[in-house]
Amino acid sequence: MKAFAAEFDPQRFHLSEEAAQQSIFKGLAASGWHTAAATMRLMVLGELKLTGGLVGLGGEIEWLRPTRPGDTLRVESEILEIVPSRSKPDQGTVKVRITTLNQRGEPVQVFTEKLLVFKRP
Amino acid sequence: MKAFAAEFDPQRFHLSEEAAQQSIFKGLAASGWHTAAATMRLMVLGELKLTGGLVGLGGEIEWLRPTRPGDTLRVESEILEIVPSRSKPDQGTVKVRITTLNQRGEPVQVFTEKLLVFKRP
Repeated sequence: MKAFAAEFDPQRFHLSEEAAQQSIFKGLAASGWHTAAATMRLMVLGELKLTGGLVGLGGEIEWLRPTRPGDTLRVESEILEIVPSRSKPDQGTVKVRITTLNQRGEPVQVFTEKLLVFKRP
Repeated sequence: MKAFAAEFDPQRFHLSEEAAQQSIFKGLAASGWHTAAATMRLMVLGELKLTGGLVGLGGEIEWLRPTRPGDTLRVESEILEIVPSRSKPDQGTVKVRITTLNQRGEPVQVFTEKLLVFKRP
């Protein structure tokens, strides 16, 4: 957590226990981008296999609570919508809600994403 | 780029030039999360200084084109809205649009984010 923060989000509440105690987080918290990156890892190594890979166009991300030292994260993904491309017959987009939960089952992040998808050859 | 991808987004088009040539990216592309994390670094080291730090609640992220090897990124941020909290007189939220541009001035990412902010003590 501290190594990621030192590289990408060098703020006191991600780097120092004491500073984090005095912050809104009331204790050391992972960068939201670390939670997001860890979520991506779980997605790529997970069960949702798409021809052409997981190619995100963007989406709505929400951090609901911090990830803490020692937390174990898992993801749940739900397909919300599948929209074939009108102009490209082999392409489409999939809207998926990816919820990242900690070991207490509390959601730490919800990312509702649009993925670019391809038909099987 | 490859080190970040190996850890967080181990997909072929982020790891191998040859595989990336055959992919939708037509060449090696950074993980969108790497672009997002690099953007956060630029924000934290940048000019937007807020009491209590940059605490993101979430927002809408859009990847417009890939970041490529050798690209130099910069960010532009624009405050869109400042909303004082109704219940907490020392808090509020700020909506900010953070555009990440490459060395050709092309936007690679737009993140419209809500930040939790605090009044100066």
